[in-house]
Amino acid sequence: GSQVRTEMTRAVVLEEKNVLRLRDIDVDEPFTADDVRIDIHSVGICGSDVHYYELKQPMILGHEASGLVTQVGENVTHLKVGDRVCMEPGVPLPNSPSVLRGQYNLCRGLRFWATPPPAYATNLTNDPSWGAGHGCLRASVVHPGAFTFKLPDNVSLDWGAMVEPLAVGVHSCTKAHIRPGDVAVVSGAGPIGMLTTMAALASGASHVYVIDLNPRKCQVAESLVPGCVTGVHIGAVDPVQAILEATNGRGADVIFECAGNHKSAQLTTKYAANGARIMLIGCPPTNPVLDVGDMQVKELSVQGVFRYANVYPQAIALLGSGKIPLDSIITDHFNFDDSVKAFDYMVKPDDHTIKSVIHVKSE
Amino acid sequence: GSQVRTEMTRAVVLEEKNVLRLRDIDVDEPFTADDVRIDIHSVGICGSDVHYYELKQPMILGHEASGLVTQVGENVTHLKVGDRVCMEPGVPLPNSPSVLRGQYNLCRGLRFWATPPPAYATNLTNDPSWGAGHGCLRASVVHPGAFTFKLPDNVSLDWGAMVEPLAVGVHSCTKAHIRPGDVAVVSGAGPIGMLTTMAALASGASHVYVIDLNPRKCQVAESLVPGCVTGVHIGAVDPVQAILEATNGRGADVIFECAGNHKSAQLTTKYAANGARIMLIGCPPTNPVLDVGDMQVKELSVQGVFRYANVYPQAIALLGSGKIPLDSIITDHFNFDDSVKAFDYMVKPDDHTIKSVIHVKSE
Amino acid sequence: GSQVRTEMTRAVVLEEKNVLRLRDIDVDEPFTADDVRIDIHSVGICGSDVHYYELKQPMILGHEASGLVTQVGENVTHLKVGDRVCMEPGVPLPNSPSVLRGQYNLCRGLRFWATPPPAYATNLTNDPSWGAGHGCLRASVVHPGAFTFKLPDNVSLDWGAMVEPLAVGVHSCTKAHIRPGDVAVVSGAGPIGMLTTMAALASGASHVYVIDLNPRKCQVAESLVPGCVTGVHIGAVDPVQAILEATNGRGADVIFECAGNHKSAQLTTKYAANGARIMLIGCPPTNPVLDVGDMQVKELSVQGVFRYANVYPQAIALLGSGKIPLDSIITDHFNFDDSVKAFDYMVKPDDHTIKSVIHVKSE
Amino acid sequence: GSQVRTEMTRAVVLEEKNVLRLRDIDVDEPFTADDVRIDIHSVGICGSDVHYYELKQPMILGHEASGLVTQVGENVTHLKVGDRVCMEPGVPLPNSPSVLRGQYNLCRGLRFWATPPPAYATNLTNDPSWGAGHGCLRASVVHPGAFTFKLPDNVSLDWGAMVEPLAVGVHSCTKAHIRPGDVAVVSGAGPIGMLTTMAALASGASHVYVIDLNPRKCQVAESLVPGCVTGVHIGAVDPVQAILEATNGRGADVIFECAGNHKSAQLTTKYAANGARIMLIGCPPTNPVLDVGDMQVKELSVQGVFRYANVYPQAIALLGSGKIPLDSIITDHFNFDDSVKAFDYMVKPDDHTIKSVIHVKSE
Ligand SMILES: NC(=O)c1ccc[n+]([C@@H]2O[C@H](COP(=O)([O-])OP(=O)(O)OC[C@H]3O[C@@H](n4cnc5c(N)ncnc54)[C@H](O)[C@@H]3O)[C@@H](O)[C@H]2O)c1
Ligand SMILES: NC(=O)c1ccc[n+]([C@@H]2O[C@H](COP(=O)([O-])OP(=O)(O)OC[C@H]3O[C@@H](n4cnc5c(N)ncnc54)[C@H](O)[C@@H]3O)[C@@H](O)[C@H]2O)c1
Ligand SMILES: NC(=O)c1ccc[n+]([C@@H]2O[C@H](COP(=O)([O-])OP(=O)(O)OC[C@H]3O[C@@H](n4cnc5c(N)ncnc54)[C@H](O)[C@@H]3O)[C@@H](O)[C@H]2O)c1
Ligand SMILES: NC(=O)c1ccc[n+]([C@@H]2O[C@H](COP(=O)([O-])OP(=O)(O)OC[C@H]3O[C@@H](n4cnc5c(N)ncnc54)[C@H](O)[C@@H]3O)[C@@H](O)[C@H]2O)c1
Ligand SMILES: [Zn+2]
Ligand SMILES: [Zn+2]
Ligand SMILES: [Zn+2]
Ligand SMILES: [Zn+2]
Repeated sequence: GSQVRTEMTRAVVLEEKNVLRLRDIDVDEPFTADDVRIDIHSVGICGSDVHYYELKQPMILGHEASGLVTQVGENVTHLKVGDRVCMEPGVPLPNSPSVLRGQYNLCRGLRFWATPPPAYATNLTNDPSWGAGHGCLRASVVHPGAFTFKLPDNVSLDWGAMVEPLAVGVHSCTKAHIRPGDVAVVSGAGPIGMLTTMAALASGASHVYVIDLNPRKCQVAESLVPGCVTGVHIGAVDPVQAILEATNGRGADVIFECAGNHKSAQLTTKYAANGARIMLIGCPPTNPVLDVGDMQVKELSVQGVFRYANVYPQAIALLGSGKIPLDSIITDHFNFDDSVKAFDYMVKPDDHTIKSVIHVKSE
Repeated sequence: GSQVRTEMTRAVVLEEKNVLRLRDIDVDEPFTADDVRIDIHSVGICGSDVHYYELKQPMILGHEASGLVTQVGENVTHLKVGDRVCMEPGVPLPNSPSVLRGQYNLCRGLRFWATPPPAYATNLTNDPSWGAGHGCLRASVVHPGAFTFKLPDNVSLDWGAMVEPLAVGVHSCTKAHIRPGDVAVVSGAGPIGMLTTMAALASGASHVYVIDLNPRKCQVAESLVPGCVTGVHIGAVDPVQAILEATNGRGADVIFECAGNHKSAQLTTKYAANGARIMLIGCPPTNPVLDVGDMQVKELSVQGVFRYANVYPQAIALLGSGKIPLDSIITDHFNFDDSVKAFDYMVKPDDHTIKSVIHVKSE
Repeated sequence: GSQVRTEMTRAVVLEEKNVLRLRDIDVDEPFTADDVRIDIHSVGICGSDVHYYELKQPMILGHEASGLVTQVGENVTHLKVGDRVCMEPGVPLPNSPSVLRGQYNLCRGLRFWATPPPAYATNLTNDPSWGAGHGCLRASVVHPGAFTFKLPDNVSLDWGAMVEPLAVGVHSCTKAHIRPGDVAVVSGAGPIGMLTTMAALASGASHVYVIDLNPRKCQVAESLVPGCVTGVHIGAVDPVQAILEATNGRGADVIFECAGNHKSAQLTTKYAANGARIMLIGCPPTNPVLDVGDMQVKELSVQGVFRYANVYPQAIALLGSGKIPLDSIITDHFNFDDSVKAFDYMVKPDDHTIKSVIHVKSE
Repeated sequence: GSQVRTEMTRAVVLEEKNVLRLRDIDVDEPFTADDVRIDIHSVGICGSDVHYYELKQPMILGHEASGLVTQVGENVTHLKVGDRVCMEPGVPLPNSPSVLRGQYNLCRGLRFWATPPPAYATNLTNDPSWGAGHGCLRASVVHPGAFTFKLPDNVSLDWGAMVEPLAVGVHSCTKAHIRPGDVAVVSGAGPIGMLTTMAALASGASHVYVIDLNPRKCQVAESLVPGCVTGVHIGAVDPVQAILEATNGRGADVIFECAGNHKSAQLTTKYAANGARIMLIGCPPTNPVLDVGDMQVKELSVQGVFRYANVYPQAIALLGSGKIPLDSIITDHFNFDDSVKAFDYMVKPDDHTIKSVIHVKSE
């Protein structure tokens, strides 16, 4: 394949731990017949972008993006110049055992935007940009066509940038095998919990109980899909009692841990129904203690989930059908020039904030 | 348990094939500690009620019912007098192998309202009402508490009577393992197809293509959940071409055959995506020919479904959440005294008609 | 149904915590049309029989039994007098929500031989024997036909008594969805671990790594199915390293925790392959800490299992096919008169011992 | 990657329909960093090799092969020169939607040894050998490392050549979700039926009823795993009655159609148990008529299967564990020089013949 080198480009660069700068940087990104080039439009700011990494070299941030196709490799048949698209930030090694099994998110050689690759992975390729782990907060990226998805006309580019975090929720709901009418719990009403709540309702749950320490988050959650969400403010009520009472003692059928907290995780087995599936999305700094007794007498299963695989088309279809309206999720907007300010704000955002979006391309 | 004999009661009685009468009839129905007594409020008229059976003795019609609890057996703890309820019309034999496996709908000794029991089943019990196969189009019935379900306050008794046909759709969606965002097809837009369309959308499908010969039915289907349903009028367009085009050549992920027609069934493998699940709900008079080649190169599965098991609570929860609004489904209302007229009408109803409800209790 | 009172009978009675006696006791056991009466032949001694309960009244021990049918209730059609049978010791409440869902092992009102019923369950019935929680170490029992299973001619009554603990393994293997050729680990080579090892191999596993602290147990495990089991002596080798090396770094596909120890449970996520299923069979006194990181990057699931449901016919079929030869499992035999000696021995048995059987009926 | 052109090579060439010749042919096969080169040892003759294709150009036959690695591309880490291997004959397009979903067998661009590529697929690559659809009946092949699998020391190269047809059975058993102890039926005792019988027993089935028109095939099937297989000679007994009687009226839990005959396929719903899964492996020239009534009252599922995906490592592990002894399957051996004779023989082989193997490399 022909290799067209990307020019010097303006980008949001993490120079070293905690030092963020908007500056020009040289990105050496090959373009093959399997790739497309995309002009970036909107980029969401994610929790993981904010708590900074130790780096070996400066790295461009950003992994939740949408944009416009400007060049199409000859092997790519499903896209054309001008298409409005969003991109899956993780690209696995072709034909790796995990890929062939349909679990490409678990591929050990996966490269993921704005994530410094582990030592064992860097040697797998000679691509210098991959060595740095560069993300997408820049004017344009080269990306494999297989991981680039056309947006329907009624899905905006801002919504398109939200497909990445939404995909976490949709993947969890897919793996949870929600049966139509199931009662769900989401513990932790950060952006991931909010999106998972909407995904669970779109996936067949009849009601979601959303637990949080912050009463304001509980209220916001209730407003997302009125009548289908009950906020459970952990300071005001006992969540176990509240959920058991609301379900006539039966408990919740599917549970999504989105707080990233060991106490939140430990509570799940208490309000779980017989045969419930508990999905661990949150990444707790301290590991939870598992109540084996609860897990046995109710035959519970606890399932770890890691990002997503094969759910971008599904999440986009749900956006296109209007079943997951994201307007209430995107609460804050920033210009590209204010990117550093945006990241600073997201370290400790106001309670009303769910997701912030940076507009790389100013309209 | 104490046995309280039901008095002579006014009921819609099928005297013999094609001869229907509203008259008094003697129903000898025991009441045990596991039972409740319910005053019937609304009863839906179903396709199967209309094409009449050969009978050994007169049989009361009706199997889609809601009502008010008037007496509660001592072992029944989840219901009380005055509760608004709907009832599952099929009751399996306790501890039968199918029951223990969670497939009680497949129990060979199942007794089902308004269904003359097969020869092998009649000897299983001494209950005279069971021998007749009586249904629920009468003032009051005795029913096991385990198959009687409380309705939420925001679900009307008319909606409650619709839980039975809705449960057919919800059961199919449960067994189809719809993944969030899947594209669905419903072939046949009769009442079962309409309810299955709504169930599929509530269960995670992003869009439903509804196929019918009747253009009016296609329009009605589109109006059920605007923006999420596309009618496919089989006379105007080629359904295979239409569905493949709409899905960029991929086809549909889940398919519900609700026409009860062998041509409709045979077409399903043509517009199915790789790995699609085809649910056979309709009961075709002529059996379809299965295209094994299609089924192999796309690894399709074709699954027969029979009524429902364990989905009443799930369907009721979806009604309570507002995810399946039934107002557009119940198109016609009749008084109990006009029951025979109602059945006559439903033999060849107007195109606007989806479901008719008889009000046994006049308000 | 007719109620035939059982006479005063000789039985192994737990008088109070730690006090065991073989003596005559009065058992008031009704016989209904759904029941059979069985003369007990062989009874296995189980770990849970040995660590004694706090009791409200004396209780007969024993829950792993086989015998001969001596009386058949009129509703029972699949058994006749003289049939060689084994019995499922747990009987759920008819039509309870768990039963209807096919999860009767999770029924809150389940009565289980030699298990004092919990407070909430005792009031559910007037059966006095149920109130005591009596087991089967006596000459004869009355049991529901639905939970009594005919043994094939080539399965001995001693093997029949082993169906109960084997069912724990078969149920776990069923829930683990073993794919043909999967690599399995069993952690803990007590009787449950040994039987689960055999069940896993019969269920499609290609190889089982059996971990134990006791090198003798590891050797015994290897001898069960030569060439298909590798003992992993936790004192001599690092089990994580050993299993990863043996699987070319991939790890185990299915893992059965049978040690009942939190360290054993915690280790499972370390040698698990991507997408592995970890089945928690053992009941650890101290709860394990769950490594959420491992569970996420490998998308592991951890599933609690509780006894069994719907697996007796399956386990019996596997015994009949010769796929699980139990001769090496039944290591010790006792006469009924030596029952107390047998229990004393099983508190701290010799390393060669796997299962002991008491012969209630001396031949 | 470097491209080393394969020299003129002796091969079994299908010149045109029905004209087979052992002759020298020029194979232009590039070698990339992801490939290995293998000296072919044993090649099985398959039913599909025998009924000849219409061709555009001469094509080398053979797709069931084992051999020795002679060259290893730099990206291939799990193989080394001298390794004894077998190869998966179908190679999908990297990152195609089917591949990413773990269904690479359904990839529309799949290239498969000895299968002329369809028109739409030929343009996908410039590889001339791919355009011809050449198979492996020649001295040496170049193959992607990702589809080349090391054999354990205790698995012979002849057994290795059988992994391909065995994989069809293992894949079907994997998709059938056999529960431990299930009763299976295999209809059609050709090589595929024989291997599927062994795979089903190794995957947890307790017993297999093997149906065939030919009594000799039924006897051979019974001899494969003595005590676990019952031949059902369709001329001597009614298979439906025989299977229902043997299962006390319940029927079979999993059914594998391996006859490739519509009558065999139609019969499956008659002896199926409630909830049974029917796997369509055979490719019938005439399509079967599906009994929808049977499929509904028993909630049967009928699943098409196409070759295999992700089962080579699993099948090889089962061979290594000794759970599928193939010695009785490989009934006939031929030298490479007698290849044409071998194919002629296999058009109408003796009844004792199951599989024939050609030894490309004479020892
Ligand atoms: N598994 C994956 O692939 C994946 C992907 C994305 C994010 N994550 C993880 O998901 C988690 C959530 O992400 P986020 O961006 O929404 O985080 P966030 O920190 O913004 O939100 C967490 C929320 O949990 C609440 N919370 C804290 N302790 C709680 C408790 N004990 N009970 C209930 N609620 C509690 C907080 O008040 C907050 O509202 C993080 O741990 C993140 O690392 C995982
Ligand atoms: N499996 C079960 O448990 C179950 C339960 C209830 C109903 N059913 C069956 O479901 C079917 C549907 O029930 P209903 O009450 O909606 O019936 P209906 O007759 O009212 O509706 C059938 C619809 O299919 C359309 N149709 C006919 N041929 C068609 C074709 N070739 N392609 C597309 N559409 C076509 C008709 O125009 C009509 O609108 C019936 O066969 C019924 O017996 C099955
Ligand atoms: N879930 C259920 O339904 C169910 C049913 C029956 C038994 N059980 C439980 O299963 C467990 C096993 O029963 P058993 O009768 O075989 O018990 P056991 O005590 O005889 O066997 C336990 C074995 O585990 C070994 N072990 C201890 N610590 C270990 C460690 N850290 N790593 C590896 N091996 C270790 C011991 O040496 C011993 O051989 C018990 O906890 C029992 O209560 C559960
Ligand atoms: N789905 C796939 O991926 C796949 C892969 C390989 C082979 N196949 C197909 O599997 C089938 C079997 O392959 P094979 O090589 O074993 O074929 P084969 O022709 O050697 O064997 C077929 C057997 O079926 C028996 N048979 C014929 N009619 C029967 C009937 N009505 N009932 C019972 N038995 C009957 C024959 O006597 C014969 O023994 C073929 O159709 C083949 O094309 C499919
Ligand atoms: Zn993110
Ligand atoms: Zn109906
Ligand atoms: Zn036990
Ligand atoms: Zn083949």
